[in-house]
Parts: sequence; C-alpha cells; structure tokens
Amino acid sequence: MSTAWKSRYAQRTKDIKSSTIRELLKITQKPEMISFAGGLPAPDVFPIDRFQEACKRVLELNGHQALQYGATEGYEPLREMIARHIARYGIKAHTENVLITSGSQQALDLIGKLFINAGDRVLVEAPTYLGALQAFNVYGAEYVCVPSDNDGLRTDLLEAPLRSGPKFMYVLPNFQNPGGTTLAEGRRHELVMLAERYGIPIIEDDPYGQLRYEGEHLTPLIVLDRENLRRDNGFTLGNVIYLSTFSKTLAPGIRLAWIVAPEDVISKLVLLKQGADLHTSTFNQYVAYEVARDGFLDQHVKLIRQVYRERRDAMLHALQEYFPHEVTWTHPKGGLFLWVTMPEGTDSEALFRAALAENVAFVAGDSFYANNGHEGSRHMRLNFSHSQPDQIREGIRRLSVAVKMQLRSNHVTQ
Amino acid sequence: MSTAWKSRYAQRTKDIKSSTIRELLKITQKPEMISFAGGLPAPDVFPIDRFQEACKRVLELNGHQALQYGATEGYEPLREMIARHIARYGIKAHTENVLITSGSQQALDLIGKLFINAGDRVLVEAPTYLGALQAFNVYGAEYVCVPSDNDGLRTDLLEAPLRSGPKFMYVLPNFQNPGGTTLAEGRRHELVMLAERYGIPIIEDDPYGQLRYEGEHLTPLIVLDRENLRRDNGFTLGNVIYLSTFSKTLAPGIRLAWIVAPEDVISKLVLLKQGADLHTSTFNQYVAYEVARDGFLDQHVKLIRQVYRERRDAMLHALQEYFPHEVTWTHPKGGLFLWVTMPEGTDSEALFRAALAENVAFVAGDSFYANNGHEGSRHMRLNFSHSQPDQIREGIRRLSVAVKMQLRSNHVTQ
Repeated sequence: MSTAWKSRYAQRTKDIKSSTIRELLKITQKPEMISFAGGLPAPDVFPIDRFQEACKRVLELNGHQALQYGATEGYEPLREMIARHIARYGIKAHTENVLITSGSQQALDLIGKLFINAGDRVLVEAPTYLGALQAFNVYGAEYVCVPSDNDGLRTDLLEAPLRSGPKFMYVLPNFQNPGGTTLAEGRRHELVMLAERYGIPIIEDDPYGQLRYEGEHLTPLIVLDRENLRRDNGFTLGNVIYLSTFSKTLAPGIRLAWIVAPEDVISKLVLLKQGADLHTSTFNQYVAYEVARDGFLDQHVKLIRQVYRERRDAMLHALQEYFPHEVTWTHPKGGLFLWVTMPEGTDSEALFRAALAENVAFVAGDSFYANNGHEGSRHMRLNFSHSQPDQIREGIRRLSVAVKMQLRSNHVTQ
Repeated sequence: MSTAWKSRYAQRTKDIKSSTIRELLKITQKPEMISFAGGLPAPDVFPIDRFQEACKRVLELNGHQALQYGATEGYEPLREMIARHIARYGIKAHTENVLITSGSQQALDLIGKLFINAGDRVLVEAPTYLGALQAFNVYGAEYVCVPSDNDGLRTDLLEAPLRSGPKFMYVLPNFQNPGGTTLAEGRRHELVMLAERYGIPIIEDDPYGQLRYEGEHLTPLIVLDRENLRRDNGFTLGNVIYLSTFSKTLAPGIRLAWIVAPEDVISKLVLLKQGADLHTSTFNQYVAYEVARDGFLDQHVKLIRQVYRERRDAMLHALQEYFPHEVTWTHPKGGLFLWVTMPEGTDSEALFRAALAENVAFVAGDSFYANNGHEGSRHMRLNFSHSQPDQIREGIRRLSVAVKMQLRSNHVTQ
C-alpha cells in the first residue's frame, strides 16, 4: 500500500468516525438476535405483489425509457404525483418545487453541500437524527443543540441559539427519530415565526408524518410558514425546505425520497445532485409511480399504520409489564421509535453489552447528540416497526433483564 | 421568497455553472432532432426480457431482502461477481476491494469528497470528461491540464505538472470521453511509473473498456501499477483507484457502478457514501446480479459491440463521404464517441446554432476543457451509440451542411 494514499486522504477523513448505523445493520443480521436497533420497516408489509405487477408493466410499456438516463430533477409524473399527494397536508407545491433524491440521506447531503462551509453552525434538536449529523459532518458543520421534551423542540430556548447565526435549523416535527416525540401545534407557530424573524431557514424532515397511529395530523412547518400565509395563492414557498420519502411507506430498498423547496433553491440542488449522482434510478422512479398510483399508496399506508400501531402497543404494554418503575419512556403517536430514559448514573456501555448478552439490541442514546457529551448515556432508542408483536414482547422481557441488572449495579456503585 | 435563502446559498453556489449535460438531455428529446450529443447507450440493446425475468425472480425469491435497507458496501454476491468479472483483465481484487456506487458519477463525487480541499490541484487530460469536472468543482478543485493526442495523455509532458503537487490524476485510458482515443501501451507504463515516483495516485475511469470494436485489450493501469507487480500475489492494490459501471453494458437507468481500490481507501469511501446516500438501491443490485449472472453479461456485451461497431463505422463512412477535407476526426477503437477537429478560427457557437437549425446536435468541445479557455472551440464531440446507422448517415449529412456553411463564413471573415 502506497504512502501516497495515506498522506492524501488523512486530511479530509480525520473527522470521519466509525459508523454506528453500519455496525447496527450487521448486528441485526444475527438470527437469534431480537433487534430494536436500526430503523428498518417491516419487510412483511412490503407490497411485493404490487411491485411484481409494476416491474412487469414498466418494462413492457416503457422499458426503453425506464432503463435509460433520465432528468436530474426526476421522473415528471412521479414529481407531479408527489405534489398532488402532499396537497392533502396543505402543502401547495408545483411539480417544479419537487426534486427526487436517492433516499432522504441524499437530500441531507445535498443540503449540507449547498449551505455548509467548514465551521458553519447548524441548529439541531438534542437528540436528533444520526444520519443528518453524518451528512453535515462531512462539510465541517459545528452544532448548536437545543433540547427537546415530550412536545418536541423547546422553542422557548431558541432565541439565543438563533442569535448565534446558524446556517439553518434541522427539525423533525413528527414522531421524531430518536425521541418519538411530536412538535406541539403552538411550538410550530413559534418556530416558523422565529425562523422568519432571524432569517434562518428550516429543514423540515418528515419521513414518518403519514404513519400516525392516534390523534390528528398537525400542520407542517412549510404550510405555517408566514411567507406563504402572507401570499394570496400560498404557492410561493418561503423559508422552509421539506423532506419526505417512500422508504417508510413503500420500501427503503428502492432509495426514493423528495425535497420540496422554492424553485430557485431546487435549481441549485439540481446542479449539485447532477454532480453527485447525475440522477436517481429512472427504473425505480417508474416502478414507484406504478406501485403508488390509483390510490394504492394511501390504501397501503392504512395497512402499515394498522400493523405498526399494533407493534407500538405491544412494546408499550411490554415495557409497562416488565420494566422497573425508575425507568420512563415516550409514548409516540406515530413513527418507528420510542425513547427510554434510565435513572441518572446509568452506564450505557455496560447496559448495551448486557443487552447483547441477552440477545436483544438497541441504539444507545449517545449517538443522537451532536456535541457528543454524555447527555445521551441514560437513553435507549427502541424500534418497534421491524419485529412481530410476540418478538417485541420477548425482546422487551430480555431487555428488562439487562436493565434490572444495570440498575442493581448502579445501586452498588452509588 | 425569503432573503434568507439568497444570503445563505450565495456563497456555496457562486461557482456552480449552468449545466451543459442537462440542457443536452432536453435537446435530445425533440423528436425531429438527430442527436450526437449526450452519451446515451442505444435503448434497442437494453436486455429488457432479461430484466423482466430478473425482477420477477428477485421479488419472488428475495423480495423481503431486495426491498429492504442494505449494506453501504453493496450486495455481496454482486461485489463478488464484479471481482470475478474484472479478473479477466488481470485485475486481482477481493470482494473487499469493491464498493458499489450509484453510478460512476457518485464514484467521482466520493473521490472528490475524500481528496479535494478547496484550492487543491487535480491533474486532468485536456480534453476530459465533463461530469468529472462537475463532481470535482463542487469541492473547489483547481486543475492542471495535460494535453492528449491520438495515443492519449501526453506522458512526455507530465513531469512539470506532477511537480506542482496535484492531489491525484484523473485519466480515462480506453476510448476516452470525449476524444475517443486510447492510451498507448508504452504510455501506460510511463504513467504508473511517474505516479509512483511523485507519489500521486491515479483515478482510472474505465466505463467503456469492454466495448472494444477492433484491436487487443490493453492492460489497465491498476494492473501495471508497480506496487502490485512488486508483490508475489499481486493482490494488495496500490496506487490506482479503478472505476467502472453497468451503465454502458446493462443499462444506465439502474445507476450501478463500482470502485476498485485498496481496502483502507474503500473503508473511507464507505463512510463517505453512508453520509451521501446510505447505500445504493438494494433492489437494483439484486436485479443486476440476476441479469448479469451465468455468463449473460459477456454474451450481451458481444451483442453491444457488434451493434456499436456498425454505428461507429456508419459514422466514419459518412464523415468520409460528406465532410470537407479541412476537417479531421479521431478513429475510436471502441466506446461511444468520436472527436472532430475543425480548422482554426471556427466559431463553435455559430456552428452549434447552424447545426441545431439543421436538426442535428453535438457537444461543442469547450465543455471538456477544465480551464475553460477557447482550446475546445474547434472541436465537436459526436456520439455514435444512440442513433441507428441510417440516422447517423442522415445526421452527418445535415451536420456537413452546417460545417460547410461555417467554413465559408471563416473564409469570408479571414
């Protein structure tokens, strides 16, 4: 191995940390393991038959186009469908406001590429989505972290951080990953108002919004955005970039997501995307369009909601049954995750090892804090979408064994 | 539209230029246009039936895995298959040396991300592949350009540029885009020797290598690399990162390509890819594996060679027949492109407009020069893979009308 590489890439990669997500994907593959780690959708709800029909039809009718290079913006009928689809949530977007990306991870990368120069600040929730931190880290982001509680981001603590001049705020308002919490209505209004007052854009990441198991859908930030409200037609999008995906409603393996933004932001992102991967798989876009069309997506989302609600409930019940009273957890109204809080002084490393010994996995909270203190060490993120209800019950039982062991050792050392 | 965006993205995007490739994709969609622009494979050779079978089989047998999240490195059987496939060209790679990317464009982006800090030099051929410049530009690359001739990169002119300390050399040794030229055997040896002497890595981009229509395959740089030769087993890859793709042999719409590199370079690229798009479409990787397996890829490449050879010959014959003697062109032994050189003083802008008026399109040479002088203005890149032989003949006839008009106006103004 040449010394050339070493000297060349040392500089750029000195900050690349070994990756938690990747290690987790490996753990989840051990057959005896019950994994609440990862954020995997349930494969048993993938609409495989519908994919069969869609592939057949696309190749029969549009094989030449679907296998060819395509436009960077994405397959136009799919962009139109997405614009129609999000209208139900009050988001008024033209086709030109929609950019198809290779998963939401690419959306985060393009946003990092567009906005972040080394040393720039980004405002994030504490805790926040690990993958966003990975995307932004590469561009040299520094973080301003604002705590959240059961009602989401603490907007009452925002003013000072906003005065420090972050490039943007990155927020997950619905069933947040990892917290499972939802940003309350009043705080949504406050957030968009503050964004406008300080001239700080909002990245609204909404992969789970459709997967609500109780209560009413809350208005997206992009709709509340005062710049839109101020206009008669509400069509000129203002201060918010909105992200969503097919990964949780159709399948993650097709890597299809989208960005909704003002047209001149989209046109910049399109140029960056062209340099990044030319365009997202034409074939997958044709297939997703065929799968989703004629109301199938809505119908299928209903099924997913039903399945995941049952799993969430199974987890909540099992936690209630098995976990000691010193431990608390969030009650997510949708999404894929809940967030467990252990008493202070818990050694999350030891807890994680104890859990693996019991053949159950989770993600330790530390990974979700941008500034890498030990704020996260009392927390666990548990995924409830990927396992069957009886596995969930058994997994929580196993985890309770590790938790109780850990609590006893807390008492001993205190 | 908020002023926030304007101030925020102004900085990062001030250097993003409006995109030639993207505009070209639009032109090629006009039905009456015969387009020698773009680099599109012929859709009539896409193995659609084989894709049908593959999709059906993948969804039947592996639907749950193929639609799920996957490993960032790629689908292991596909990586193994690629390692076996490239062994015929003497490239000795383990599965661990192969990273699947979302098209070669992503490979270029990841390489830019890994190596280039703003102001760093990159050594490129003049002319070179436009998409590579777009990928590297985003990271603030400066360019050192070395001319090429009919035998490819002028290695006799390399020493001074190498002494200026570029981060890497980016080279397309086979049927170069845009030149259609192939790096001669002797120069290959010289290139890898110089790379080692100056400690400058080589990025060997080889999208077209398999599409050779005459002559013998020449040894890839990664095989000649002295670091490998020096070793008994030749397995530890040294100073060269090798890129190739399924875009020209199966279909570009599935966005599948690969990087071959030393394991510790791969592991850095994997971390960057994880932040960039998590992983390449699992479904497409399963499907490509099913399509390519059992020798189908080799058999299919033979068909493509036959079809494209015929088209190349049609273009060469038509050029001979219609074009005035002051104009010259390369004789590509493979690939998708040939390169036309007009007499000095040609106004490429005017020629391009005249050609469009005749309903024929090409890419003006300027786009392929990193340092954007007017070196390219005498040149046209012509693609011969996308049009049928009779269209090629008619297109070259139309183009000759524009060329002759242009030559007359040269004489008038001189």
